[in-house]
Amino acid sequence: MNKERMLTGDRVTGKLHLGHYSGSLKNRVMLQDQYESFVFLADVQALTTHFERPDYIRRHISEITLDYLAAGIDPERTTLYIQSLIPEIAELTIFFSMFVTVNLLRHNPTVKAEAKSSHFDEMYYGFLGYPVSQAADITFCKATVIPVGEDQLPHLELTRKIVRRFNELYKPVFAEPQALLSETPRLIGTDGNAKMSKSLGNAITLDSSTEEVTRTIKRAVTDPARLRKNDPGHPEICPIYAYHQAFNPLESAEIQEACERGSIGCAACKERITASLEELFTPMRERRAYYAARPKLVDEILISGTQRTRAIASETMREVRDAMSLNYF
Amino acid sequence: MNKERMLTGDRVTGKLHLGHYSGSLKNRVMLQDQYESFVFLADVQALTTHFERPDYIRRHISEITLDYLAAGIDPERTTLYIQSLIPEIAELTIFFSMFVTVNLLRHNPTVKAEAKSSHFDEMYYGFLGYPVSQAADITFCKATVIPVGEDQLPHLELTRKIVRRFNELYKPVFAEPQALLSETPRLIGTDGNAKMSKSLGNAITLDSSTEEVTRTIKRAVTDPARLRKNDPGHPEICPIYAYHQAFNPLESAEIQEACERGSIGCAACKERITASLEELFTPMRERRAYYAARPKLVDEILISGTQRTRAIASETMREVRDAMSLNYF
Ligand code: SF4
Ligand code: SF4
Repeated sequence: MNKERMLTGDRVTGKLHLGHYSGSLKNRVMLQDQYESFVFLADVQALTTHFERPDYIRRHISEITLDYLAAGIDPERTTLYIQSLIPEIAELTIFFSMFVTVNLLRHNPTVKAEAKSSHFDEMYYGFLGYPVSQAADITFCKATVIPVGEDQLPHLELTRKIVRRFNELYKPVFAEPQALLSETPRLIGTDGNAKMSKSLGNAITLDSSTEEVTRTIKRAVTDPARLRKNDPGHPEICPIYAYHQAFNPLESAEIQEACERGSIGCAACKERITASLEELFTPMRERRAYYAARPKLVDEILISGTQRTRAIASETMREVRDAMSLNYF
Repeated sequence: MNKERMLTGDRVTGKLHLGHYSGSLKNRVMLQDQYESFVFLADVQALTTHFERPDYIRRHISEITLDYLAAGIDPERTTLYIQSLIPEIAELTIFFSMFVTVNLLRHNPTVKAEAKSSHFDEMYYGFLGYPVSQAADITFCKATVIPVGEDQLPHLELTRKIVRRFNELYKPVFAEPQALLSETPRLIGTDGNAKMSKSLGNAITLDSSTEEVTRTIKRAVTDPARLRKNDPGHPEICPIYAYHQAFNPLESAEIQEACERGSIGCAACKERITASLEELFTPMRERRAYYAARPKLVDEILISGTQRTRAIASETMREVRDAMSLNYF
């Protein structure tokens, strides 16, 4: 029986951190047996916002690849590829762009938010067309299972619309991709900000050393109402508690209770999450060290993943060209 | 000494007619020694308006190729290729689209005109981005000489802007393409409409038989003030006179005078232009018959032209990727 094809990726705009791990990486690692998995390094998508800093994208390709491999993405079971090395995605984007109206794109929440904060006219053409390229990103390899968070559902709906339109206009080449909703809430930053993000300086990156993890957790905010260690705390507003939930789930109920009762101090609570994180990081660090010492192997993983993907892409484009009567000779 | 590279093309949306011949084809045939010539069948461009009728585009690919060969485009000296078979153009379009604002595109006269006649929001995304793909069409093969009419200068100016921006942002990969202005005015239709156009039904297509040419000229409007054949005429408003200027230039001054004096009748005047057109069409028909009888040869011309073009395209993309730091492995 053929497995369904699952696709995810990350914009190549910085190292990955614990928020990526709990929000998607962990899930991908778990699902790589259940689905035929594809994970891509979205360097072209990164250009929509970072076109002035391509060297930055370049530098992060290998870092993110190491993050993937360290997190447990297994190149034997998951195909890793670089988006810009699949020209078929660009071709499909161009074809889709013929029948998608500017209006449809303006209803995309990301574009809407951007149009609010700046003038629509000053938006870059490629940024406006982000949902069109996303539709191409998903469909060129006929992925049908797309793990997404709640906030990304409107994007996927646009992809589904584009797919339906293509199938109606030409031939039913594509199946409508389905969302695989992840229940994981967004991971809170070490400063209490709702979102962990490298640019906010409140992230624990996946390449952190023991010292870095320890120091960052030590500096993290906790419930500011707890002045003494036996003051009753409010774990629901504390990032440390959120990390216990995410990375120390078996003990998180006990910690919640202890914090609320004032029977655990923040320093002790932090030591315990540091220990849990170390358990998570230790095998990751081993895998990272293994691959970091073998840059040729990492290149080969990306090269062979990209080749495997191009073979699928070129088969899809054959069908697309057939459907569109652009199948010359 | 290396010749400069000249590039032109036609949207694949219908057979070519005398307006195309006098406006551009004749010029291309003349220039194919002076420049390294590239002529492309713009099927992707045609999709911006004909995405619902791809079979129509498909059908016209071979007809236009025959038009080219019949008109004297020599496949030994001019590289003919099909736009959709060069994925590098799509890739370059995507890269350019990252740094071109919607605002810049809205200033493009074609988009402006369209935005006037319909709502901007209802415009297709691909149509809005037409200048971006045109920039990619011109630059991917590093063409520097672009024969254009006056009305297309604003488009070329946009391409030049995009090229300058790319060169500033990354590295100076591209030379700014220069317009080769053609002096030929637009050819008037047989019904007196300022523009000969197949959709207006006032065109003489390049595949016309002797009978078709004769009949169409017979039916063409002339100066409506001439009721009798010795009434003085106004050749400047008569399409037949325009055709004498374009296709019978040595006699056109004499005809103008004779018409104004009332010393030539419209029937005789039409017979003379029919004879001139027959002189133009006879060798064209021979070449057309030769190639029409050899569909494999025509395919080979397109295939080898496309291959030659892809080799150039892939070299350009290597430089583009270098400049953008997207040169992995
Ligand atoms: S005890 Fe733990 S959960 Fe409670 S406030 Fe301190 S660090 Fe946060
Ligand atoms: S004589 Fe010739 S140029 Fe004059 S009106 Fe008749 S057709 Fe036209």
